[in-house]
Amino acid sequence: MPILHHLPLSPFCRKVRIALGEKALPFGLKEQRVWDRDRAYLALNPAGMAPALELEDGGVIADSNAIVEFLDEIAPDPPLIGDGPMQRAETRRLIAWFDDKFNREVTRHLYGEKVQKRLTGAGAPDSSAIRAGQSNLRHHLDYIAWLAARRNWLAGDDFSLADIAAAAHLSTLDFLDDIRWADHDEVKLWYQRVKSRPSFRPLLADRIIGFRAPAHYADLDF
Amino acid sequence: MPILHHLPLSPFCRKVRIALGEKALPFGLKEQRVWDRDRAYLALNPAGMAPALELEDGGVIADSNAIVEFLDEIAPDPPLIGDGPMQRAETRRLIAWFDDKFNREVTRHLYGEKVQKRLTGAGAPDSSAIRAGQSNLRHHLDYIAWLAARRNWLAGDDFSLADIAAAAHLSTLDFLDDIRWADHDEVKLWYQRVKSRPSFRPLLADRIIGFRAPAHYADLDF
Repeated sequence: MPILHHLPLSPFCRKVRIALGEKALPFGLKEQRVWDRDRAYLALNPAGMAPALELEDGGVIADSNAIVEFLDEIAPDPPLIGDGPMQRAETRRLIAWFDDKFNREVTRHLYGEKVQKRLTGAGAPDSSAIRAGQSNLRHHLDYIAWLAARRNWLAGDDFSLADIAAAAHLSTLDFLDDIRWADHDEVKLWYQRVKSRPSFRPLLADRIIGFRAPAHYADLDF
Repeated sequence: MPILHHLPLSPFCRKVRIALGEKALPFGLKEQRVWDRDRAYLALNPAGMAPALELEDGGVIADSNAIVEFLDEIAPDPPLIGDGPMQRAETRRLIAWFDDKFNREVTRHLYGEKVQKRLTGAGAPDSSAIRAGQSNLRHHLDYIAWLAARRNWLAGDDFSLADIAAAAHLSTLDFLDDIRWADHDEVKLWYQRVKSRPSFRPLLADRIIGFRAPAHYADLDF
């Protein structure tokens, strides 16, 4: 069985876990405290980051996008990038939106300050960074609402890695109770549909020592 | 003819220009000073970043990886990602290595401090950031040398987007005279092979007001 080396709250690792679940591919999980710079893990993945997927034959795929593109190639059903070059480009544009732009403007300021700093002993959270992240988050939630109002799923007619990437980031922020759902009805309706998918359930069971998710985090009817 | 909205020294834009050249796809260039937040450009690409590829039918593809994946789908010859899921995963791992890790550890500190800050009026370069970038660069050049010593091209037997992404970043740093080639023979030999490809030539002709490339920048026999 392949092993996913991961961190439970990393949106990039969560994206891969959901994709593996959608493809119904069995896998094991191994937590990697990447900041410990474990030599055995660096030999597997010289970038030293999570996630990395270790295959049964010993092959290793590092980087969350390399992994999800690989999964879509070896297990094309259900497709998670889409059909045709333009649709696939739109899905990939939105994956980059969430993994680059949203990550830089929001996740890094909230997950980075509240979780990564604590886990790595990098000091106290910077409250001005947290405020910036929360302010940026509102604009991003408006963009998700705009997409959700015009399309069945974020990238178009079908559920895709755009939804998975977006929901992975939001699930991490929701674990930290950083989303005021009452102010974002449209986003909440879309997120409820993602959250109720079987591939998403394992994320709702994550427990992280030293952190406590709000009660609604694991509730499908929040 | 498609129009690539770009910034001449951005490694992400350079990656797409080289890929378009390798595919022998004709295209026009339009410089986008993305920090001006031009409304017409934001309507094309709400992320507001460069590059974006505007197609003849009005369709727009944003994000450098979405663009190069699209190009490899519509113009598969020559292939730039590789053959088979494992080779494609290795190419994509290295694209992410350069566009994420190298960019964060090196490019951002050198191009970001010396060029982006000046163009956007964001203040004087931070000399400690520049020193960190130069120190990190040496480790990354060692990694490129390690790959180049073991493989014909960085990702394996064939020239790929891994070489293109790496060379795009190095070309920007070389424009800024940040690479001490005499200390990195193995990397220099690999880079000379990339630099002499016809797809690379247009980058060597770039002129940027307020910046002057060193004499060796455009020299194929540097």
